[in-house]
Parts: sequence; C-alpha cells; structure tokens
Amino acid sequence: MNSSPAQLLSAQNVNQLLDSVQAFLFDCDGVIWKGDKLIDGVPETLHTLRSKGKKLVFVTNNSTKSRSQYANKFLSLGISVTEDEIFSSSFAAAMYLQLINFPQHKKVYVIGEQGILEELQLAGFTALGGPEDGKKTAQLKSNCLFEHDKSVGAVVVGLDQYINYYKLQYGTLCIRENPGCLFIATNRDAVGHMTDLQEWPGAGCMVAAICGSTQKEPIVVGKPSNFLMEFLLKKFDISCSKMCMVGDRLDTDILFGQNAGCRTLLVLSGVTTESVLQDPSNKTQPEYYTSKVSDMLDLLRP
Amino acid sequence: MNSSPAQLLSAQNVNQLLDSVQAFLFDCDGVIWKGDKLIDGVPETLHTLRSKGKKLVFVTNNSTKSRSQYANKFLSLGISVTEDEIFSSSFAAAMYLQLINFPQHKKVYVIGEQGILEELQLAGFTALGGPEDGKKTAQLKSNCLFEHDKSVGAVVVGLDQYINYYKLQYGTLCIRENPGCLFIATNRDAVGHMTDLQEWPGAGCMVAAICGSTQKEPIVVGKPSNFLMEFLLKKFDISCSKMCMVGDRLDTDILFGQNAGCRTLLVLSGVTTESVLQDPSNKTQPEYYTSKVSDMLDLLRP
Repeated sequence: MNSSPAQLLSAQNVNQLLDSVQAFLFDCDGVIWKGDKLIDGVPETLHTLRSKGKKLVFVTNNSTKSRSQYANKFLSLGISVTEDEIFSSSFAAAMYLQLINFPQHKKVYVIGEQGILEELQLAGFTALGGPEDGKKTAQLKSNCLFEHDKSVGAVVVGLDQYINYYKLQYGTLCIRENPGCLFIATNRDAVGHMTDLQEWPGAGCMVAAICGSTQKEPIVVGKPSNFLMEFLLKKFDISCSKMCMVGDRLDTDILFGQNAGCRTLLVLSGVTTESVLQDPSNKTQPEYYTSKVSDMLDLLRP
Repeated sequence: MNSSPAQLLSAQNVNQLLDSVQAFLFDCDGVIWKGDKLIDGVPETLHTLRSKGKKLVFVTNNSTKSRSQYANKFLSLGISVTEDEIFSSSFAAAMYLQLINFPQHKKVYVIGEQGILEELQLAGFTALGGPEDGKKTAQLKSNCLFEHDKSVGAVVVGLDQYINYYKLQYGTLCIRENPGCLFIATNRDAVGHMTDLQEWPGAGCMVAAICGSTQKEPIVVGKPSNFLMEFLLKKFDISCSKMCMVGDRLDTDILFGQNAGCRTLLVLSGVTTESVLQDPSNKTQPEYYTSKVSDMLDLLRP
C-alpha cells in the first residue's frame, strides 16, 4: 500500500503520468458516468488519450450489465467502446468459473441481474435465478418444503434491485446443503451511484445478506481482488507499472490498482470526497487525485 | 463461558436441576414449536413445571410477532401463556428505545414485520416501514430522488420475509444521512425454523445486508445481548443462578444464559445437532443437554 500522501494532479505532473503510462484502466460509475448521465468532458478526454496511443480499458464492479450491454450503454452516451475493452464483474464471475473448470453439468444460481446471467450463458454455463426469481414469493407454510436444485454448484451474488426472501432462501439452501457449493461475490461495494442524484445499496449489501444467513465468506472476483487483474495481464501485454487505474473509490479501485503495482489516480466525481481522502483514518492513498477525468485534458492544454 | 463439557440430562441430575431452579426461560422456535407445529410433550412439561411452582418465561429472538400475537399463537397450540411471560426481540427493541429516552418526536423506520411495529406503537413511538413497504419498488431513474424522512432517528432491523430493495435503500439512507440515527438489530440469528420442515434466513441476514450497505454495526437487543436479561431481572425478583435458560442455539440461547450467569440446558430439537455440540471447534458448552424439553418430564417419572 502506498503510504505517501496523494498528489493533486497538476500541469507539472500530468505530462510525466501520461508519458509513462501505456494503458488507462477506468472505473465507470462515478468516473465515466453517474447513473445514466455522462460526467462532463469524458468523451473528449477518452478521444485525446486514444489519439496519444493509450490503450483504454473499462473495469467496472457493477454486475448488472454484461459487456455487450455496457458497450450499448457507452454507445448511447456517444462513446464508442468495444466489448473487448470492457471488464465487468459479471464477466469476471463467468471467467472465474471457467478458470477453475467448473463442471458443465453443474448449475449456477444467481442473486443478481441480467448481466451475470448473460455472461454465464456466453461462457457455456447453465444459470438459474436472477430476474425471473424477482417476482417469486416464499411460502412459509406447514408441511411445505422449499425445494432447491441439488445440482447447483455455485451461487453468484451481485447487485440485485429485485432482491427478495425467495432468492435469499434459494441461495442459502444451495450454499448450506449442496456439498462443495461455491459462494462467489461479483464485488462488495457498499453503495454505488445507481442513479445520478444519489447512492444506493451495492452488491456489498446482498453479499453481506448471504454471509449473514450462511455464515460463510465469499470468493470475490471483482475489484479489489487480484483475479480481474491477472486476467487483464494475460490479455494485454503491458506491465502493471505502465498501467494507471483511474477510479472514484479507495477501497476497490485504488486498492485494486495498488495491489497489482499499477499507478493510481483518484477522481472526486464519485463516492469519495476530498475530506475522506485526507482524513487521518484513511490508509489508502492514491498516487494522484483530481476532481474529474477531464482535468487531465485541461491540464495538458498550454 | 463454561468450559466443561455438557452433561446429558439424566434421571440422576434432573432432580438437582429442578430443585435448584426457580424460573425456566424457554426459547420458542426449535424448543416449544417448529414453525406452526408443537414439539411433542411440551404442554405436559410446562404444566408439570408450573405445578411445581416454577416461574416460566418465554424469550424469543423471532421479532415477527408482538407479545400479544405470541400469546395468541400459544393459545392456538393449546397452551395458556400470558403476555407478561413473553419476551420477544420485537418488545426488546421498543423497550430499548424507551430506556434510552428516544425522543417521541423522532420516528423509527422498520425493516421487519408486524410484531416490531405493534410493540413500537404500544410503547408510544411512531413507526414507519415494515409490511406496508413490502410492495413498494425503488425507481432507478435519472433526476429522480429517493426521498426519506429526515425525522427518522432509529432504524430497527429484524426478520423480514418481505425484504426488498426499497426498504434496504430507505434504511440505508436514514442511517447514512440522518445525523445520529441509531441502527438497532432485534437479533442476528443466521437462520431459523420459519416452517416445520426447514430453516430459512433469519434476522442475521437482513441485519448483515444493512451492515453491508452502511458499513456500520448495530446495537443488538435480543439474545445473546445482555439488554433483555437486565430487563428480565428488573421485572422478576429472581437471581440469575436460580434461572435456567432452555434453548436450541448455542450462539444465542446458551450464550445468553451463560453471559448472565444462568444455568443452561440445550435441547437438540432445533438447529443444533449433537455433532455440532461435540465438535472440538465448538467453544460454547451448556451445563446440560437433552433431545427435547419433555425429557425433563420423562426423566422425572419413577
């Protein structure tokens, strides 16, 4: 962990950062957009970085969308990004199961949204639950057994705005009763900018609920876990020291970058305020910080 | 904590236990009933204990009912119990707020069921949420602010089979944004026998969800916290050493009894199996254990 205090990004240090970095890894919520609103100056900044030959990668813990859904979201906001440049925690969950050779005859129960289901299916896995269990209700009746599929070998938990008692019981039964059933969390963000105006409970809320009922801890595949970074490194032939992680969260983005030995830039356009960054109790210091990504562009101008 | 191994209740030691105890504190789920089914031999056992002059108290972490609703449940199962003999975690939450002189002009937001609302209202507090928010949905839309009542000064979280994202966001906003807002958990049981045939996620699941989104820890008023015991002691003039806590859970019932210096009896008719009790990793040993409460009666017979 970096112990020297974060430096404010300035006209003096921005050139050094840009010259020494080959790839920028961007978080999305609070960095590129807030909810469905683009943050000022993002398209121009991404365009300038691309024109300088920088590789751009978008690394998001928000599991509600698949890579293809994210590419559409970028497009709808006027930014052209390919699926190959997107690393969502929904994709990470599917890649994790692939990496461990999760048996194809086993099923995956999902507490989460469409993005996880899509990525699991693209990777060839059979997924249950997710949105279609959002309207189911649990019947607490005598002599009435809540049945679950004994062939579920993994429960993947991510952000789920349709969380209910049915899904909590289903996931809990699989983890408690199916021998060897894995408990995988896309991420553990406490809250996130699900809308532009405010924060909402994040995947950390649903993951904690399942920790509470199963008394087990999950395998985390999104930021700040190293899994996603190892996957990125295999895909791109760039050393970590030539990557810069740009994010709005200390506990996921900045920690993720630092754990891997990347350069780090905190933007204050999301959940972290300057007072949280400067608070003596905060132990995670990014290398640089600035108010928003387009500051890079503004500081470069003569 | 008691470190000597639990003794099996026997014809030899049951008389000593009964002679030295003036009050029996019974857990309900897994001890008196499972879901809506009475456990064999309970009415006869309670009747015999009463006829021997023993005081009976029913101490339940299940917050879904009020004391009056519990008295009705006992009656429907053919057992006569007065409200005065019932100590539910729903009641404990209301008593806690009364004890700390929670201001009457402040409101209480409830993630939980009818029992908590009833007890809060009986104690003179204004409660929001609970069942009526079970059908509400959160709108994740641009320019749309999720409003919460700024006069909520406490969020009480218990078991809630109608848990949803609306309630999770409401409770999270109150705790994160209303200055000084308390986070009170009725209890943290991981699972419980909501039906006779199986276990379901308990209040520990909903409480953990709010811990996950707020990154705060709650004040727990149910077992194993001392709050309920202090309240019991004020009400009944019996010393702890003359009370015996009878329960099916090591982490709530037995710990609760031991924390207060009570005698303890574990019954294996609920969540704890003999192998869990005897496992070397288990650090909580009751004084006695037996398969079900009616064993007391059977062992007494010549």
